[in-house]
Amino acid sequence: MATLIALDHPSPVGDAEALRKACQGWGTDEKAIISIIGHRNAVQRKLIRQAYEEIYHEDLVKRLESELSGDFEKAVNRWILDPADRDAVMANVAIKETIPDYRVIIEISCIRSPEELLAVKRAYQNRYKYNGDEINEALADSEADILHNVIKEKALNHEEIFRIVSTRSKAQLMATLNCFKDDHGSSITKHLVDDPADQYLLALRTAIRCINDPQKYYEKVMRNALNKAGTNEDALTRVIVTRAEKDLNEIKELYYKRNSVSLDHDVANETSGDYKEFLLTLLGKED
Amino acid sequence: MATLIALDHPSPVGDAEALRKACQGWGTDEKAIISIIGHRNAVQRKLIRQAYEEIYHEDLVKRLESELSGDFEKAVNRWILDPADRDAVMANVAIKETIPDYRVIIEISCIRSPEELLAVKRAYQNRYKYNGDEINEALADSEADILHNVIKEKALNHEEIFRIVSTRSKAQLMATLNCFKDDHGSSITKHLVDDPADQYLLALRTAIRCINDPQKYYEKVMRNALNKAGTNEDALTRVIVTRAEKDLNEIKELYYKRNSVSLDHDVANETSGDYKEFLLTLLGKED
Repeated sequence: MATLIALDHPSPVGDAEALRKACQGWGTDEKAIISIIGHRNAVQRKLIRQAYEEIYHEDLVKRLESELSGDFEKAVNRWILDPADRDAVMANVAIKETIPDYRVIIEISCIRSPEELLAVKRAYQNRYKYNGDEINEALADSEADILHNVIKEKALNHEEIFRIVSTRSKAQLMATLNCFKDDHGSSITKHLVDDPADQYLLALRTAIRCINDPQKYYEKVMRNALNKAGTNEDALTRVIVTRAEKDLNEIKELYYKRNSVSLDHDVANETSGDYKEFLLTLLGKED
Repeated sequence: MATLIALDHPSPVGDAEALRKACQGWGTDEKAIISIIGHRNAVQRKLIRQAYEEIYHEDLVKRLESELSGDFEKAVNRWILDPADRDAVMANVAIKETIPDYRVIIEISCIRSPEELLAVKRAYQNRYKYNGDEINEALADSEADILHNVIKEKALNHEEIFRIVSTRSKAQLMATLNCFKDDHGSSITKHLVDDPADQYLLALRTAIRCINDPQKYYEKVMRNALNKAGTNEDALTRVIVTRAEKDLNEIKELYYKRNSVSLDHDVANETSGDYKEFLLTLLGKED
């Protein structure tokens, strides 16, 4: 249960005007600020921020920051932000401290719901322009070496592979896989084929291919589905249905380059009847 | 780029009526079905399903399922579903097969965006009534033993702890922690205190506390923030601001039970001025 005593149906415009008044002239009316925002829920506070911005062309959060100070300012600042944005700010402050306070990060990751956590990640990216595409080249280089050593020692269920593949950003992981290829002559998936029946190796190769180049991966799924003895209709349907509205055109181009025959042609050859008609329609056949 | 050639501004009602006609009488008009749904994007297909349901009080997905057959039926079924719902169905079919096709799961986890993946998880739960609260008691028992052995051997950065804490559902993990307590007399966090300066142990204890009982965790954060030499204003602000609209009342009750003094009283004692007024307002003080 909440402790907040929120007012029923306050006027966002009236609140914005009262806050403006509390911030103007000599001295700030802290009591007025507390009596307003201390009794508004998250939605109401958001509407106040929007009304304030519209009326005064000024950011209420910044105005309060400049009017107030100390722990009071910090508490008002955290309170007036959207919950996800607030978590993003608190996480950033916590990890930038001389001695980072990881408890804040743990609280957010373990206590927020999956939905809330996703919103926090998005807010963090927006606010700190943290670019998911940024790459640490030195890290890519050292982790490519770690992967190579692990594979050379055939310690294939080694936790290091798992850690690298499951925790790095896609961009970072792709840089690592490129380093691997540059330093060792061939792609990592070529090194992960010791035992074709090993389910762990198969899963690892599939994950690396999916992360590295989804379209190239799907081209191969189609090639296997169409060109092996016995068409794999499930795979055929899956790729066409899930990619027809996304990037099936690029997959078609890759297929043509790789197989010197169009995907539509092979699909037409390996299927029949209404199923064939439907797949070709999704592949972009003009009626 | 998409291969789908979608019609501009089709009428959902007109489409629903045409599909109904294609399904009625002797035989099904497969060509008509293909010419409609094969040229509609995800939003348009959703509107058709809704219009069909409203007009005929019948689920279009089920109707098509009963009219069509074989690979064609499967393809139409996958296509007509919402993308997230479709992924949920494909994932479920893939793992229920005699030889599960894990590639489908890997594709979904590695290629979909974080937003899409969350939608798939939600669709999966809705569709298969998979209850996140279900508990495997035998697993809880065996994993409690694994944790106990790892701790006894002081192999505290052992990957097993990491695996269990980071991959099990909250409900499952709580069952495991309860087994641990029942079998070994005290909670696991009491066993993780060998070296108070060890950051790994601290993080692990914090995560376990957050997952196990967030309110009890927050009560302790408040207790430490208020009762140690030097008030920790950051922690105080963080807990009050983030929980005032959620469960601060329960945290207050736990605080009173544990410390025989109200949280409001201790906050009032350890803070001053506008900061104090603001925190007490969020704690539910009547004006």
